[in-house]
Amino acid sequence: MADTTDITVAEIHDLAYKALLANGCNEQNALSIATTVSTAERDGSESHGMFRIPGYVSALRSGKVNGQANPTAETVTPAVIRMQGDGGFTPLAIERGVPLLAEAASTFGIALMPIVNTYHFAALWPETEKLAEHGLVGLAFTVAKPKVAPTGATKALFGTNPISVAWPRPGKTPWVFDMATSARALGDIQIAARDGHEIPPGTGLDSEGNPTTDPNMIAEGGVLLPFGGHKGSAIATMVELLAAGLISEQFSFEAAQNDNNDGGPARGGELLMAMSPEVIAGDDWEAHCETFFTRLSGLEGVRLPGQRRHDNRGDTGPRKVNNELLDQIRALL
Amino acid sequence: MADTTDITVAEIHDLAYKALLANGCNEQNALSIATTVSTAERDGSESHGMFRIPGYVSALRSGKVNGQANPTAETVTPAVIRMQGDGGFTPLAIERGVPLLAEAASTFGIALMPIVNTYHFAALWPETEKLAEHGLVGLAFTVAKPKVAPTGATKALFGTNPISVAWPRPGKTPWVFDMATSARALGDIQIAARDGHEIPPGTGLDSEGNPTTDPNMIAEGGVLLPFGGHKGSAIATMVELLAAGLISEQFSFEAAQNDNNDGGPARGGELLMAMSPEVIAGDDWEAHCETFFTRLSGLEGVRLPGQRRHDNRGDTGPRKVNNELLDQIRALL
Repeated sequence: MADTTDITVAEIHDLAYKALLANGCNEQNALSIATTVSTAERDGSESHGMFRIPGYVSALRSGKVNGQANPTAETVTPAVIRMQGDGGFTPLAIERGVPLLAEAASTFGIALMPIVNTYHFAALWPETEKLAEHGLVGLAFTVAKPKVAPTGATKALFGTNPISVAWPRPGKTPWVFDMATSARALGDIQIAARDGHEIPPGTGLDSEGNPTTDPNMIAEGGVLLPFGGHKGSAIATMVELLAAGLISEQFSFEAAQNDNNDGGPARGGELLMAMSPEVIAGDDWEAHCETFFTRLSGLEGVRLPGQRRHDNRGDTGPRKVNNELLDQIRALL
Repeated sequence: MADTTDITVAEIHDLAYKALLANGCNEQNALSIATTVSTAERDGSESHGMFRIPGYVSALRSGKVNGQANPTAETVTPAVIRMQGDGGFTPLAIERGVPLLAEAASTFGIALMPIVNTYHFAALWPETEKLAEHGLVGLAFTVAKPKVAPTGATKALFGTNPISVAWPRPGKTPWVFDMATSARALGDIQIAARDGHEIPPGTGLDSEGNPTTDPNMIAEGGVLLPFGGHKGSAIATMVELLAAGLISEQFSFEAAQNDNNDGGPARGGELLMAMSPEVIAGDDWEAHCETFFTRLSGLEGVRLPGQRRHDNRGDTGPRKVNNELLDQIRALL
């Protein structure tokens, strides 16, 4: 295990903010990203926390990403609102977009928000949980550079293509999942490689197309596999189509073709969807859904997705951050 | 292998139609169901073809399902149109609903159709492919009586909870998948049990909660497992929430509580969603998506989902139907 330092969530926020501000972000963008990074650390999602700061900074320093981006909303139809990201990182576009999406979904029962011309480098649960706080079902999809081979193939075509869904449970934390459609998230592979851990069989292939349990072989020249065989592969395909084809943004393979490989995220889109159970199902929806959640959580052996994150959230103590990473970030100030 | 008889798709349609008409369906309902059943046989989807007729008839004979149902549309919002199924089988509600959903999605970019108070006993691809024929992305979700244990548990809570997604490819057959969120579809288990075939490890548990490869042990008292471990289990949960919680219809566990176990389907809902790439992405969407499909189908080892069904569709010859099943259906006339 690598050496770590205890550091509070507020300190994480402050350090992230300063590193971004020192490297070309304006205040609004730096604050929005720092909040995204520090809430990931707060929830115990290490691979989406401080670990991402060097990549954010690389993409600012190379000039690829606009740290001064001013994302704006376009009304395509009353139920489709497109966020134009102005070439910036995604958090500020999401921060501005979510209230507009929530309003449209609360009026029409369902609404869609394509987010385009942005650089996505974060988890998806912050935006789906935010929609759930508005009493809405939130769904989010995004793509990245190819790292996952479709089932049957040995060459990557898909990104790790995550999906997040949050279900509102007023007065409780939402039911929420946020999962790569690969067998493992790429961040987990990178962290396993850093810490010298093996990964389970079925996770990926080496550069020759052979199964491997060495995260280094997957990270460098190898590929991940989809979760759940051909069914997971179909879902990963759907994510490409929803988060690129449907919103006229780059497929994973296009993102790779057009990226400068500075270590930050490639340009890409995100698709957000919101639905109102109040409008669609009527007043009884909440009590009705709770009968299901009660049965689900009452089954022996079942753990609700997102539960560990929500448990971590309640812990107000400091977080453990890798020392080498901390040094790396402090050198960026 | 069971003995079979060669029978044309037109003869299958005619036999299904007559069996339904002889047992309480009016002409419109009988025609709509016969089309659903015969297109399943046409596409080689045996478990959704003639195999279902005895169950349809049982549910008519027990008086549970209204064979004279007159499904009607309610405009909830301009983007949410609810089909009230009038206690009938789902095909006629779908036949009437799809054009209304397509119109709303073509206007607003996205639209939702909860289908309630119906009895669902078919595949989902007929409706998602129909939406794709309108140039729309089609998604469908439904639940059934519990047969799938959430990951970690040994007791069933989910139905096999299928998802279908169809992506329009003008001038070509759509990209489409229709899959149970269980490791295998229940129909496949039933057919394997009938034909005396083993099923792969990881498919299900026996009534004691132990892994088994005997389809009879799963079919009688055992449970199926979700595909893809905890990620598939999260997706199966999402289907419960979308196709029951969001539309105020029965969760799988409620369907079981309220069903008369006549061998037909339990009452349940279906959620249809349609999105217009033309409205959302603009004119270039088709050429853009084809660049992705070309890469995907060009990878060695990749088979597009739905391809086998579409290949079967081109075969105008007779289909092989199990003799025992044919005798059983002829006895219903």
